[in-house]
Amino acid sequence: MSSFNDASSNGGSNPSSTKGKIITCKAAVVRGPKQPFVIEQIQVHPPQKMEVRIKILYTSICHSDLSCWIAENEAQRVYPRIFGHEAAGIVESVGEGVTDMKEGDHVVPIFNGECGDCSYCKSTKTNLCEKNRVNPYKSVMLNDGKTRFSTLDGKPIYHFLNTSTFTEYTVLDSANVVKVDSEASLKKMSLLSCGVSTGVGAAWNTANVQAGSTVAVFGLGAVGLAVAEGSRSRGASRIIGVDINNEKFIKGQAVGVTDFINPMDLKQPVHEKISEITGGGVDYSFECAGNLDVLREAFLSAHDGWGLTVVLGIHTSPTTLPLHPMELFNGRSIVGSTFGDFKGKSQLPHFAQQCMNGVVNLDGFITHELPFSEINEAFQLLIDGKSLRCLLQL
Amino acid sequence: MSSFNDASSNGGSNPSSTKGKIITCKAAVVRGPKQPFVIEQIQVHPPQKMEVRIKILYTSICHSDLSCWIAENEAQRVYPRIFGHEAAGIVESVGEGVTDMKEGDHVVPIFNGECGDCSYCKSTKTNLCEKNRVNPYKSVMLNDGKTRFSTLDGKPIYHFLNTSTFTEYTVLDSANVVKVDSEASLKKMSLLSCGVSTGVGAAWNTANVQAGSTVAVFGLGAVGLAVAEGSRSRGASRIIGVDINNEKFIKGQAVGVTDFINPMDLKQPVHEKISEITGGGVDYSFECAGNLDVLREAFLSAHDGWGLTVVLGIHTSPTTLPLHPMELFNGRSIVGSTFGDFKGKSQLPHFAQQCMNGVVNLDGFITHELPFSEINEAFQLLIDGKSLRCLLQL
Ligand SMILES: NC(=O)c1ccc[n+]([C@@H]2O[C@H](COP(=O)([O-])OP(=O)(O)OC[C@H]3O[C@@H](n4cnc5c(N)ncnc54)[C@H](O)[C@@H]3O)[C@@H](O)[C@H]2O)c1
Ligand SMILES: NC(=O)c1ccc[n+]([C@@H]2O[C@H](COP(=O)([O-])OP(=O)(O)OC[C@H]3O[C@@H](n4cnc5c(N)ncnc54)[C@H](O)[C@@H]3O)[C@@H](O)[C@H]2O)c1
Ligand SMILES: [Zn+2]
Ligand SMILES: [Zn+2]
Ligand SMILES: [Zn+2]
Ligand SMILES: [Zn+2]
Repeated sequence: MSSFNDASSNGGSNPSSTKGKIITCKAAVVRGPKQPFVIEQIQVHPPQKMEVRIKILYTSICHSDLSCWIAENEAQRVYPRIFGHEAAGIVESVGEGVTDMKEGDHVVPIFNGECGDCSYCKSTKTNLCEKNRVNPYKSVMLNDGKTRFSTLDGKPIYHFLNTSTFTEYTVLDSANVVKVDSEASLKKMSLLSCGVSTGVGAAWNTANVQAGSTVAVFGLGAVGLAVAEGSRSRGASRIIGVDINNEKFIKGQAVGVTDFINPMDLKQPVHEKISEITGGGVDYSFECAGNLDVLREAFLSAHDGWGLTVVLGIHTSPTTLPLHPMELFNGRSIVGSTFGDFKGKSQLPHFAQQCMNGVVNLDGFITHELPFSEINEAFQLLIDGKSLRCLLQL
Repeated sequence: MSSFNDASSNGGSNPSSTKGKIITCKAAVVRGPKQPFVIEQIQVHPPQKMEVRIKILYTSICHSDLSCWIAENEAQRVYPRIFGHEAAGIVESVGEGVTDMKEGDHVVPIFNGECGDCSYCKSTKTNLCEKNRVNPYKSVMLNDGKTRFSTLDGKPIYHFLNTSTFTEYTVLDSANVVKVDSEASLKKMSLLSCGVSTGVGAAWNTANVQAGSTVAVFGLGAVGLAVAEGSRSRGASRIIGVDINNEKFIKGQAVGVTDFINPMDLKQPVHEKISEITGGGVDYSFECAGNLDVLREAFLSAHDGWGLTVVLGIHTSPTTLPLHPMELFNGRSIVGSTFGDFKGKSQLPHFAQQCMNGVVNLDGFITHELPFSEINEAFQLLIDGKSLRCLLQL
């Protein structure tokens, strides 16, 4: 089957033979904060009503996996657990009632789901589904409050971020799975599962960057670079990239970054420099570093009167926003953006098409590829600032 | 002259006789934080280039006058000073280069001016003029950095908020003066100088309240009630008024408030109550009390996913916003609104017309009238929560 492309070489069990049965397979299980990922045999139970079991072919590591692995927030500490949310795979089987996907379909998991039925999904103003939205505190399935993963002796292994992709097989609510064109490269489609959709969507949907406008991106990881790519595709006249890691500057050029600032090279605050070179600040600034000081610099880098700051970085709670109420009266505003304000199920297939057509260029985001067994090394690459996305092949 | 209406009885000097000369007149001067207003004779110098000298006929007291009189922020402490920014009057004379106004024109001062020429004024995205925007720290004229007020022995008396209206005569940049229809009641036009424009504009321009939407207004002073009136005029289906003063509830009914909440009568936080009665929160919430706890309640009262909170209340600095960065990811957003996002010079004349035509009902906002000499009593009425606007007649 030519359509399986880069998927075909992965072998794996014939979907029809495992349907309705428990699958025993490999997964990277974590048993405590910052504990190494241990590849072990686990059991994956069949999908229940409106659930989907997928065979993961590729998964990569997003900074949000890193934050949750470090377990910055106490309430997130649920173990043993399978992390991972950026991936691509093939439907192994579907549970009762699932009609929009079938065995063999190419799919990407989305941590921020779309049930399509709730008042939120029906509103055009939000992509936060009532039930299937991102929820870092959730660790079980909605249907029965139980897990679909267990150890070989039957003890529960918990889910993560509606997805759990560091495993050969995973079970998700169908609201958290999007079918993509089988002609598309599944390797590249994994980028749409989180990082690239989040960044491009923040530029397109949240900020609605206009041609000729000016942009500053703080933090040039995959998310920040995707913001730059989204802004470039919209015709932004100037895209200022800010990062403390000079290696990210080379990556930035490929996605349209026009100016680079390394805060460590400056004697003044970044926002002063940006104000100087843009004549008052940028139209849009994006915080993609997950750092509150950076958030404040991003906010002040936006032009007074109309500048918009979009927060993408994940921050520990509880902390208060480092802004003064009266600063809102300078006409700057600030919003958060989850999954780039894309409604995953209804909008991602079209976005995937746009990526295939070259509206958005996905080249360069996958900087490394490793076998699944080297997941700890892949985490280290992200920690060390060496990788954008390291693709793990299962 | 029939067009002078309620202005004609005020006598005062013949404009043409004072042009170019120093005018000696009465003003309410403040000499320190919380010091009583002392009506004394002062000198008002002629308007310079692009300035206007106006005879104030009516002035009222806004909570912002109260905050500055109390001098919450150290940097604002400049004395002796003439407060006041909500007023209406008649042009006495204009300085060189002023062509859009002439002697005898009916005008209202606007603390947030519009020069019409700067990049901000030319942008449709902001009403914050580069030079003439609201600036609580400014106490002198732009032209020469000096004051146009002085004591009889020539010592400077400082300006306030681009306006200074607690005086029989005042000098302003022409960018801070708006000409209104001479047929309009100047008493009512004084409301457009700040409170009503701020509140109605916040509903119309900042939030863009839509028919059928739900609104919560925190703080039912003149500003909050004007938000309610603006929301009513836009067809909001539900307008929840929140105040700790039960007397404000009666006023609220006249401007379309449908539900009242006194936080002191509740055993739960206000936002929980609002979420209960609206099924998840309101579409738009407005903070018009100038209190950070109220700001937080207003934010949480907005519906997750799409709710917008507009901050109108003035808060002391430095304080941080009582919001957590991760709360932005619930899809709620927050913006400040200055002067209701009206561009004063270009949009107020039309807004005045809408008020005259009954689109917006100005009845009820002026709850008291007193002679100028009773300005201290007028302040006490606002402090005691008895007045919305007490009009002082000069
Ligand atoms: N909102 C969402 O839906 C969403 C989705 C995905 C990721 N995220 C978050 O977005 C952020 C970025 O994710 P990523 O995968 O691109 O991470 P990443 O680790 O690949 O990139 C972060 C970048 O920020 C830079 N950085 C760190 N500190 C900095 C500082 N003080 N100043 C400037 N730059 C600094 C790093 O050098 C790095 O290049 C993370 O916080 C992640 O959790 C949010
Ligand atoms: N943004 C602007 O351009 C602008 C313009 C004018 C006024 N303001 C500000 O708007 C605010 C309101 O002005 P105003 O003249 O209507 O003031 P006001 O004193 O007439 O009204 C304030 C109302 O808030 C109520 N309140 C106080 N504490 C409360 C609490 N904890 N919970 C609920 N309600 C509470 C009071 O009872 C009162 O009814 C002030 O902070 C003022 O400085 C801003
Ligand atoms: Zn992610
Ligand atoms: Zn939904
Ligand atoms: Zn005011
Ligand atoms: Zn201007």
